[in-house]
Amino acid sequence: MDKVERIGVSLDKKLLCDFDKLIARRGYESRSEAIRDLVRRELSTEQLSDPKAHAVAAVYLVYDHHATKVPQKLIDLQHSHILQAISSLHVHLDHHDCLEVIVLRGPVGEINQVGENLLSMKGVKLGRINLVATEPHHGS
Amino acid sequence: MDKVERIGVSLDKKLLCDFDKLIARRGYESRSEAIRDLVRRELSTEQLSDPKAHAVAAVYLVYDHHATKVPQKLIDLQHSHILQAISSLHVHLDHHDCLEVIVLRGPVGEINQVGENLLSMKGVKLGRINLVATEPHHGS
Amino acid sequence: MDKVERIGVSLDKKLLCDFDKLIARRGYESRSEAIRDLVRRELSTEQLSDPKAHAVAAVYLVYDHHATKVPQKLIDLQHSHILQAISSLHVHLDHHDCLEVIVLRGPVGEINQVGENLLSMKGVKLGRINLVATEPHHGS
Amino acid sequence: MDKVERIGVSLDKKLLCDFDKLIARRGYESRSEAIRDLVRRELSTEQLSDPKAHAVAAVYLVYDHHATKVPQKLIDLQHSHILQAISSLHVHLDHHDCLEVIVLRGPVGEINQVGENLLSMKGVKLGRINLVATEPHHGS
Repeated sequence: MDKVERIGVSLDKKLLCDFDKLIARRGYESRSEAIRDLVRRELSTEQLSDPKAHAVAAVYLVYDHHATKVPQKLIDLQHSHILQAISSLHVHLDHHDCLEVIVLRGPVGEINQVGENLLSMKGVKLGRINLVATEPHHGS
Repeated sequence: MDKVERIGVSLDKKLLCDFDKLIARRGYESRSEAIRDLVRRELSTEQLSDPKAHAVAAVYLVYDHHATKVPQKLIDLQHSHILQAISSLHVHLDHHDCLEVIVLRGPVGEINQVGENLLSMKGVKLGRINLVATEPHHGS
Repeated sequence: MDKVERIGVSLDKKLLCDFDKLIARRGYESRSEAIRDLVRRELSTEQLSDPKAHAVAAVYLVYDHHATKVPQKLIDLQHSHILQAISSLHVHLDHHDCLEVIVLRGPVGEINQVGENLLSMKGVKLGRINLVATEPHHGS
Repeated sequence: MDKVERIGVSLDKKLLCDFDKLIARRGYESRSEAIRDLVRRELSTEQLSDPKAHAVAAVYLVYDHHATKVPQKLIDLQHSHILQAISSLHVHLDHHDCLEVIVLRGPVGEINQVGENLLSMKGVKLGRINLVATEPHHGS
């Protein structure tokens, strides 16, 4: 665990009061916890603007399993060496549609390339690439 | 399968040429496929602005498994009746951190409420709620 | 000026160090200033999800002034009573295109309605609606 | 005016019907117009991910004019040579706050740098940088 430091922050009474209401609604136990989350999100967003930054991504695909080669593509992907396709989760939505969440790890630029290749496949109806900045990964 | 209709779209030559390059880079097989994706995404975004709209969501959480009650909360959530917590995927990131992807189904307003309660938990470092509009779900 | 309060926030040393680097790059004079900005942005985003919330918006339109009725529509808008169209800024971009920034004030739902009506006009090529939450405005 | 081409797009009847409702609500005159807007926005977003791409930006700042050096900074900026600060619009919001919209033109990376320097100034409460991809500008 990292060493913890304590800093002082000045806020207008009105701003603090509105913030306290917001974090109560969201279920935060403390202001520190809520502020740490804001700081981490800002840092993560900043880091992800560099295509060489390391990230873990969850790629989210809604597809029609009658009309797609997504499952075959996922198997190929997990055996390629461009990226680490760590794991995936498959959820049946209705008679036609599935949701697949694929967790990838690697540099941002390559994740985006692979993610867009998945999103553009025939049968894929909706999708999104969600990136979280990480430290570079040593070993698998 | 729905009946397919064919419409005509006029675009400036320059705009069409730039679009063709973009979709080739992303790996689309046809312009129709790429335009359908743009249309679906726009409709999904529009629908999700209504808190009563039905949606399926993937909630991503990065958390320190030494310092959190997330696993207990997930179990409670899967046995509550507010939302359908369909399934979840757990990935080990490093010595401290895990990534958890939780798939929820229900009205947008309730998904956001539950999602924010998860994101605000102690030990949760980063996270995001990803919504996709769906038809209402009949039965589980 | 509101009364100022001072709160304490605990952060891991590593997180604080990364945050200090980020805010130095962005030119912040103090951590308090940077944290206040994160808090205000979060509150503003939250408030704007309510269509009845009061807001000021800058609507940003790029349009071809040879092929549009935008200028006439703007004049009509400034004389309607739905919203307060406070002012607008017109910038010549090139032989074809102009940028128009229109500042509107009113409830979020109505601003979005008017904004989308502007974005959908013939000749308008790109645009966006930017909202900032405000206190309700008394008088003009 | 560019030469116009006409392409055919296939969509499921249900998807087309939902899209027609959406564009009617937004006030579009034709499907072509609505699809061109989706295509242009996608291309613009793609281009803006390159820090060397040319863009025009509207930077929005809400600031307390009693407690800021924003006006002086804007004057300095308009006489610097890093970026073209084309023009700005100032709107009085209430006793304390102003909205300033500053239109900048130049490479994306530099616009972001200047924009973040403005957003981080003391007294600036909220703000955002809105970019639109453009062709490089010849002459001022």
